[in-house]
Amino acid sequence: MNIELINTGTELMLGRVLNTHQQWICRQLADVGYVVTRQSTVPDSAHELQQAVRAALAHADLVITTGGLGPTSDDLTRDLIAELLGRKLIEDSAALANVERFFALRQRPMPERTRVQAQVPEGAILVHNRNGTAPGLALEANPNPFRHDGKTSWLVMLPGPPRELQPMFTDQVIPRIQQWFPLESPFVCHTLRTTGLGESLVEEQIVDPLRTLTDAGLEIGYCARTGEVDVRLAARGSGAGKIVAEAQQIVRRLLGDHIFGAGDDQLEAVVVRLLTGRKQTLALAESCTGGYLANRITNVPGASAVLLAGLVPYSNEAKQTFLGVRADSLAAHGAVSEPVAREMAEGARRRTGADYALSVTGIAGPGGGTPDKPVGTVFIALAGERHTFVLNPINRYDRETFKYVTSQQALELLRRTLLNSTWRIHNR
Amino acid sequence: MNIELINTGTELMLGRVLNTHQQWICRQLADVGYVVTRQSTVPDSAHELQQAVRAALAHADLVITTGGLGPTSDDLTRDLIAELLGRKLIEDSAALANVERFFALRQRPMPERTRVQAQVPEGAILVHNRNGTAPGLALEANPNPFRHDGKTSWLVMLPGPPRELQPMFTDQVIPRIQQWFPLESPFVCHTLRTTGLGESLVEEQIVDPLRTLTDAGLEIGYCARTGEVDVRLAARGSGAGKIVAEAQQIVRRLLGDHIFGAGDDQLEAVVVRLLTGRKQTLALAESCTGGYLANRITNVPGASAVLLAGLVPYSNEAKQTFLGVRADSLAAHGAVSEPVAREMAEGARRRTGADYALSVTGIAGPGGGTPDKPVGTVFIALAGERHTFVLNPINRYDRETFKYVTSQQALELLRRTLLNSTWRIHNR
Repeated sequence: MNIELINTGTELMLGRVLNTHQQWICRQLADVGYVVTRQSTVPDSAHELQQAVRAALAHADLVITTGGLGPTSDDLTRDLIAELLGRKLIEDSAALANVERFFALRQRPMPERTRVQAQVPEGAILVHNRNGTAPGLALEANPNPFRHDGKTSWLVMLPGPPRELQPMFTDQVIPRIQQWFPLESPFVCHTLRTTGLGESLVEEQIVDPLRTLTDAGLEIGYCARTGEVDVRLAARGSGAGKIVAEAQQIVRRLLGDHIFGAGDDQLEAVVVRLLTGRKQTLALAESCTGGYLANRITNVPGASAVLLAGLVPYSNEAKQTFLGVRADSLAAHGAVSEPVAREMAEGARRRTGADYALSVTGIAGPGGGTPDKPVGTVFIALAGERHTFVLNPINRYDRETFKYVTSQQALELLRRTLLNSTWRIHNR
Repeated sequence: MNIELINTGTELMLGRVLNTHQQWICRQLADVGYVVTRQSTVPDSAHELQQAVRAALAHADLVITTGGLGPTSDDLTRDLIAELLGRKLIEDSAALANVERFFALRQRPMPERTRVQAQVPEGAILVHNRNGTAPGLALEANPNPFRHDGKTSWLVMLPGPPRELQPMFTDQVIPRIQQWFPLESPFVCHTLRTTGLGESLVEEQIVDPLRTLTDAGLEIGYCARTGEVDVRLAARGSGAGKIVAEAQQIVRRLLGDHIFGAGDDQLEAVVVRLLTGRKQTLALAESCTGGYLANRITNVPGASAVLLAGLVPYSNEAKQTFLGVRADSLAAHGAVSEPVAREMAEGARRRTGADYALSVTGIAGPGGGTPDKPVGTVFIALAGERHTFVLNPINRYDRETFKYVTSQQALELLRRTLLNSTWRIHNR
């Protein structure tokens, strides 16, 4: 089965906005066994859009478009697709009522041009939009004038804003896709998430031991991001479950504690889960990561059971006021130093009463480096009941990657400590 | 001129990873006047990849691929493109030396399979990779067997990891593109960034007054994100500069203080800039945004001149210990209340000595709502020298969008206060 995803928007071609639809939609489909064959993005131009939809309809069983259903003049998808398939546009009373209700609920006047969102191609199925005004639209291209094998194709048009698109896709579109295209054979896919090893090292350790299973149909995929490598194990057919389970066992044995989770697990969620299970608490004192670590932890629902407080003592005075770092230590060693990292963690632990406190101090750059302490110098301290452990990596990255990598190391230090497992940093 | 971008990676089709290359590359090109015509993503499959490159070479003057140059078995781009264009692969000694140096510098053994990254198609230009092992490759498809108009095309292959791809694209690829394809006529593009108005309202206010200019060639584009709408004004040709300048003047007059910046301006950077210019300082006390506001502020280089401290007092005890919130207030009104928001901001201001302190307390959800204070309830307080102002929006979103929208409102409250401008929240 061929699935094509077409994202529309001149702002995407100009790089004004990040295309998050691709990942989100592909992921939702993959989770239920459908793999998108091809994704493309075209600008809000009649020619490009019609050409892309026409080409997709020539090959694909299912074509999904995003964007271009809004009320402004660059929203062309509805009109162009209706034209391409020779369907008239008709004002739909339910769609119009939804537009009117949207503005009434917000006590705002309904701009006249939003009325166009109630226009629906003849024969289309409406996909209700509970967070906005433009409904999604599903059409069977029957006959499909662009396809030579005589098959029909389904075409689903979704609005661009993620919080409008996402609930309608999960609740209404996925069930229809499962009905239009029932899966023929079982598909099993399992992903293990690792940290602390580069992509080549991960592959080197597992590829030969998995040879028998790959010969039997196992597909192995690697996905490397800064500080993380995912190993995806997939198979199709009646033996798929057994093949993937055996592969998983082998990879778990070989990579051990480098595996921090599976599927969608985030390192911060794993840490929150470990602490919650032990009824232990955490405090954070972060200078160079500037709140990013607290932000990651508090993205996890239920983090409030674990996190007592985060502090971002950006100035030296704040390090003294809120954490009791000694003026002497700051003067003698500087804010970016092992003694200060240690005092920050111990101060945060003492003042909050948390079981563990993590501190981070470093030079994110672009400015602030010295020959002695170049940009990228970091001290990460973890204070526990018995002792305080300090890591000293050098993280030379742009400012935001620096924050990510440093927070990853801090979380991993905590995870390894909670697991009582040793760990070395490999800079990739 | 047609430019096609092809992102490769099965992990992209499975939604395991976000495609950030599309935005980044499109943006870099747009900034120097080149607009990507079409972007597509294909899996690591020989058939799909060759088909996509072949189709792109049939139309495009420039084809850029990302990914598939690594050392693992699913890295197919180099081999497949060499095969497609009938070029032999030859081990390049400079490329091999770069691979060897990479591992030597990190004092790690060189895995044998990384050697494949020194394989280069005959006649290719090497694009040096200063952050990794796989060089980028540029090839002129001359003759181009897939193109009927007899023109040649350039093909640029880039490695997948962003921190490898990005510097090589900026430093080495863009200058070559400018040399291969000099721009024919001037291109001018200016983007104004607004907050506090929905997309339809923005368009309604400006579209008629801009009519004369659109007739003269002005293109207007809108890009709406939660809490922000960008207005992009563009024109080509000899009068482009004048048309865009006049349009900008009109939009600035009509939208006034809703415009917080231009181009790449981020609201947090605008606020840091305003405070820096006045030599004023800021403290943050954020409960429900959990460090996200501090993270946004500290993403701005130079934020340390402005931000004295951020606090994330997640527990009630931490609100008392670090900010001096009174136990009475917590007991009488609850942590999510106007009096507590007020005491948090005033406490943060007093304890840090900052000119301004912003506090946020609310219920992010999914749990924690009550009939009285439903999920989404937020209090944002801004304490200044004279008085403390409190906003009380209801932000019903998923957890991460909630943090974003709330931090946006807090920053906007501060910006409007610094500008001495009034402001009403429109929930979009």
